[in-house]
Amino acid sequence: MRYCPRCAGAIERRVPPGDDRPREVCAGCGEVFYRNPKIVAGAIPEWRGRVLLCRRAIEPREGYWTLPAGYMELGETTAEAAARETREEACAEVEILGLFAYLDIPRVSQVYVMYRARLLAPEYRAGHESLEARLFAEPEIPWPQIAFPSIRLTLERYFADRAAGAFAVHSEVIRRRGIEG
Amino acid sequence: MRYCPRCAGAIERRVPPGDDRPREVCAGCGEVFYRNPKIVAGAIPEWRGRVLLCRRAIEPREGYWTLPAGYMELGETTAEAAARETREEACAEVEILGLFAYLDIPRVSQVYVMYRARLLAPEYRAGHESLEARLFAEPEIPWPQIAFPSIRLTLERYFADRAAGAFAVHSEVIRRRGIEG
Repeated sequence: MRYCPRCAGAIERRVPPGDDRPREVCAGCGEVFYRNPKIVAGAIPEWRGRVLLCRRAIEPREGYWTLPAGYMELGETTAEAAARETREEACAEVEILGLFAYLDIPRVSQVYVMYRARLLAPEYRAGHESLEARLFAEPEIPWPQIAFPSIRLTLERYFADRAAGAFAVHSEVIRRRGIEG
Repeated sequence: MRYCPRCAGAIERRVPPGDDRPREVCAGCGEVFYRNPKIVAGAIPEWRGRVLLCRRAIEPREGYWTLPAGYMELGETTAEAAARETREEACAEVEILGLFAYLDIPRVSQVYVMYRARLLAPEYRAGHESLEARLFAEPEIPWPQIAFPSIRLTLERYFADRAAGAFAVHSEVIRRRGIEG
């Protein structure tokens, strides 16, 4: 960020009056610009015991498998974002069943918010950001080809809860270095 | 947003190639600028059955009571943000006990993430955004003077769960018009 989006003045990095950390501030009009963490909303779409994964057509982690998930947009609920991402990445319609995981990833200022979901029909195919979409039974999950730690953690907790017969809401922090998320 | 923060070119609002909704795009360098919902992190700090509220010194809702809460910053976890806001608004130290409420407010593109918390000592006072800070037993809560629907909902669910002897994680959508949050 070099220029003020309001007045095209020069941006400088300094601590505004009354604040406690450096921000981007316009040297001309004085406007302060804040950056905040982003929510990645996702679903765990299930059909008769199998879970829908997508193989990524884009970087990072092209060719690796993931649950449908992506940045939440303005004006939608997190559950709506999770359903929209499932539609975009796997061309599938889901009913969102409930919040399942809230995963802080402070290293990249992201929070993954994952929902249990039910496919409305066994109809799915690769969206434009996916190479393929496929239902996996638990023993078929391609663990070494899972794209992100957040997705691996979500799937691990999901299958453990399902085996135990009760789904909890999991709030955890992912601090591991490496591929983001 | 009128000027590109990267090159000071003119910003126009249009649907970028491959996208499905209008974004702010630089007519000069082509950079696309995304806006996303913000997380408001907060705590329900308890000390021997009483809950710590702050009376707001700033708009919106100056003079009304709220739980300590505010925008999450880059590089922190949501629980760290909730503890930091409690420190800033009520000069109090808390131990975060667990996720309690995840409240979508799509009308203002905010998500409130509220945590159960324990005051480490009965030491608190108004921070610079508060007029006063005070512990309230449940029958003393100033319900008509609670600042935001999100805070009212959090307190209602908290006292109901406490009375029932078990805390759940509450995921809800606030659609009511009026004061934000």
